[in-house]
Amino acid sequence: MNTFINVEDIGNLQQALAEAQEIKNDRFKYQHLGKNKTLMMIFFNNSLRTRLSTQKAAMNLGMNVIVLDVNAGAWKLETERGVIMDGDKSEHLLEAIPVMGCYCDLIGVRSFAGLTDREYDYAETVLHQFIKYSGRPVFAMETATVHPLQAFADLITIEEHKTKARPKVVLSWAPHCRALPQAVPNSFAQWMNAADVDFVVTHPEGYELDPKFVGNARVEYDQMKALEGADFVYAKNWSCPGVTSPADYGKILSKDMSWTIDAAHMAVTDNGKFMHCLPVRRGLIVTDDVIESPNSLVIPEAANREISASVVIKRMLESL
Amino acid sequence: MNTFINVEDIGNLQQALAEAQEIKNDRFKYQHLGKNKTLMMIFFNNSLRTRLSTQKAAMNLGMNVIVLDVNAGAWKLETERGVIMDGDKSEHLLEAIPVMGCYCDLIGVRSFAGLTDREYDYAETVLHQFIKYSGRPVFAMETATVHPLQAFADLITIEEHKTKARPKVVLSWAPHCRALPQAVPNSFAQWMNAADVDFVVTHPEGYELDPKFVGNARVEYDQMKALEGADFVYAKNWSCPGVTSPADYGKILSKDMSWTIDAAHMAVTDNGKFMHCLPVRRGLIVTDDVIESPNSLVIPEAANREISASVVIKRMLESL
Amino acid sequence: MNTFINVEDIGNLQQALAEAQEIKNDRFKYQHLGKNKTLMMIFFNNSLRTRLSTQKAAMNLGMNVIVLDVNAGAWKLETERGVIMDGDKSEHLLEAIPVMGCYCDLIGVRSFAGLTDREYDYAETVLHQFIKYSGRPVFAMETATVHPLQAFADLITIEEHKTKARPKVVLSWAPHCRALPQAVPNSFAQWMNAADVDFVVTHPEGYELDPKFVGNARVEYDQMKALEGADFVYAKNWSCPGVTSPADYGKILSKDMSWTIDAAHMAVTDNGKFMHCLPVRRGLIVTDDVIESPNSLVIPEAANREISASVVIKRMLESL
Repeated sequence: MNTFINVEDIGNLQQALAEAQEIKNDRFKYQHLGKNKTLMMIFFNNSLRTRLSTQKAAMNLGMNVIVLDVNAGAWKLETERGVIMDGDKSEHLLEAIPVMGCYCDLIGVRSFAGLTDREYDYAETVLHQFIKYSGRPVFAMETATVHPLQAFADLITIEEHKTKARPKVVLSWAPHCRALPQAVPNSFAQWMNAADVDFVVTHPEGYELDPKFVGNARVEYDQMKALEGADFVYAKNWSCPGVTSPADYGKILSKDMSWTIDAAHMAVTDNGKFMHCLPVRRGLIVTDDVIESPNSLVIPEAANREISASVVIKRMLESL
Repeated sequence: MNTFINVEDIGNLQQALAEAQEIKNDRFKYQHLGKNKTLMMIFFNNSLRTRLSTQKAAMNLGMNVIVLDVNAGAWKLETERGVIMDGDKSEHLLEAIPVMGCYCDLIGVRSFAGLTDREYDYAETVLHQFIKYSGRPVFAMETATVHPLQAFADLITIEEHKTKARPKVVLSWAPHCRALPQAVPNSFAQWMNAADVDFVVTHPEGYELDPKFVGNARVEYDQMKALEGADFVYAKNWSCPGVTSPADYGKILSKDMSWTIDAAHMAVTDNGKFMHCLPVRRGLIVTDDVIESPNSLVIPEAANREISASVVIKRMLESL
Repeated sequence: MNTFINVEDIGNLQQALAEAQEIKNDRFKYQHLGKNKTLMMIFFNNSLRTRLSTQKAAMNLGMNVIVLDVNAGAWKLETERGVIMDGDKSEHLLEAIPVMGCYCDLIGVRSFAGLTDREYDYAETVLHQFIKYSGRPVFAMETATVHPLQAFADLITIEEHKTKARPKVVLSWAPHCRALPQAVPNSFAQWMNAADVDFVVTHPEGYELDPKFVGNARVEYDQMKALEGADFVYAKNWSCPGVTSPADYGKILSKDMSWTIDAAHMAVTDNGKFMHCLPVRRGLIVTDDVIESPNSLVIPEAANREISASVVIKRMLESL
């Protein structure tokens, strides 16, 4: 595995889930793979869970880890040719990225969507620069449009907690005070489409996810109807993906608090489990009662980030 | 050992001192204990000595170390229930802390006193949140009211340099230009009360330490009288603890430069050794002559921070 | 080897180059040397290549690494005696530096020239404080006047790519929009003077390098004439070294774009290779065509930073 961006990169999901359990039972089993190998984690944006869980996974696998915090504002890379670089960009990506590749064996990149230029964000420009110029396997640690380490951890969590062969999984938009990227719902939709689940997406009109990710998933604009009989409720806010109205890309179209997941929402599910990628704003996305209930999976879900990262890094080490 | 906050946590002091010397003679003796174990060091405030010495100690013990610098201002955790989190707090402690616990085996926390709300500070609110919600053993790396890794290192240093079975140890307040917390004098007093020393505290009126820490220690308001015959002079500034005048909590009550430890002060001691936890402001706390004299222990005292941290982490690893 | 500042510190260059190749062939060969040893990397200024390559080298050698980012503005050390430290300097170097030495075995220091006080910069004040007070071997990770890890990597690169026993190497000044230190050209000149190459320096008048570094190297003010028949063109900007006009120290004397290395410049060389330490501003220092040409060595040159650091750290570990 040389890139980890989309669900296709992980191959057969049942095999990936089996590997996840194998590693969860013995996190240090593949420690020999990482000996004398270095992971470089490059953050253009802040991180708590992703940084900690990925670093832990790499150390479990015996790797050395170098963390590089790149202030998105301070490190402006020139990307054009023919430019006289006498402004605020002190380095060209054609030098910076190959050099980073010199000092490591694997690269993880975090680079969020700017939410102003849909074409630039959805082209995954920064991620693809690293893939093209670093000379190293590259995995996404949440990029402009995807967060596959999260989606894989979510899938592991659903597999561990499902009580039916084919559970109903509902991705529900919920309100938020800031404009958030679509990376998490994009990847979640993509992975659920590939998994053996009954997948439904619900959100207010205008929040349609990009077809590249949501595919033929059932979209239900009536949230309560969508939640009926759900085994898993995956709450998440996202800003306008700009599919039906490109001019609204990245905007907040609704703050409708009736979409906040509360006990009344959970009541229509089939004893549904509550999931969220965290961090979560209580009172907007979900009520205290729901997130603190025995049916809340947010902590085991976060714990599985170490497992999804372990499988991905293990695969990449095996491919070196 | 599942928490390290107060002197009671370390148990028998003679045994702890013996372990300290054992580790000092072979810092890597217990390296097998930390294999595949991860220490997470969480800093809400800046650190030089504590960060370096604790990281070194954990590496000596074979651990992996993750350092998390949390800007106290930027990472505001919601602590209340029933709140709509639409302000500047993006995560609730009930999610944030358990998640951090997911990715490590031990947690060290630095979180200074705010010096505005005595009750909040002396309740050790942040530290106890980590103890309650992280699911991991937690040790203080200077918190609102204690700095036990420093006090333990001080005790080791006194043990190494004492020339009498029961030396006289004087904790002396000294002036400073800024309002400082009471964590260092609190822990020093607590540990000296538990140790086999003749302990005296001296400070201007109003600077009385909290009874929880100073206990029945002898308090002498005449600094020169207190220093007479001292074997160890432990200088430190602290702001008003608010014991006798709660409204003055955290305030500077005196900048009396006659309290600065100089040659005249040391002259009344019994060839006393000078100690300070560092960083120290020369000219306020102590003169150049005294801190540079052969009787100054500030550097070996700092070096013993690696040793005290090693014993504490070793104990916690043994208890896992 | 207890210091690594000047070319003399590395001893016989042929032997150093042989060690470099030995390590390049097996980067982990000397991993036993670093077991239970800690490198402390102290950065008073930002770093990308130096941080990553040095950390990688130390890990290759089995060391633990502690990275300390010291904001040059925030960490003001008092250096005088007899001062009442009631201002913004919270620690005296006589405490701070020995304490850092307590927790490690080797120290690397980055501390750039301020470019305002030539005497202070050229005395290498900060570097020598670490050498004098830390009690540990110290190497320069670019200091006020030298960057020997870069110069050594440059020499390795020239050795690997030379097609003649004694190649012609030209250090050429090139224009830049900001005032840059002289550390890189100083060290490059010093190392080339010591190496078996035909070394020429070219720059506009007023940019004469300090005799301590440039020695008796041939200086040619006509850039095109200097480049004739060159095997290696090492481009670099530097501000006025203040040799001929002390009052101009650190100033930009010229932005003459005719000095930018382009195809016309390279045409007069003997199929010359292009070198630069990076980061490089395209359009000012060099054109896109030249830096992207097959004759550009900038990426292998950067990759050799890991090798030069490995040799230096290996030597220091052997001397412990």
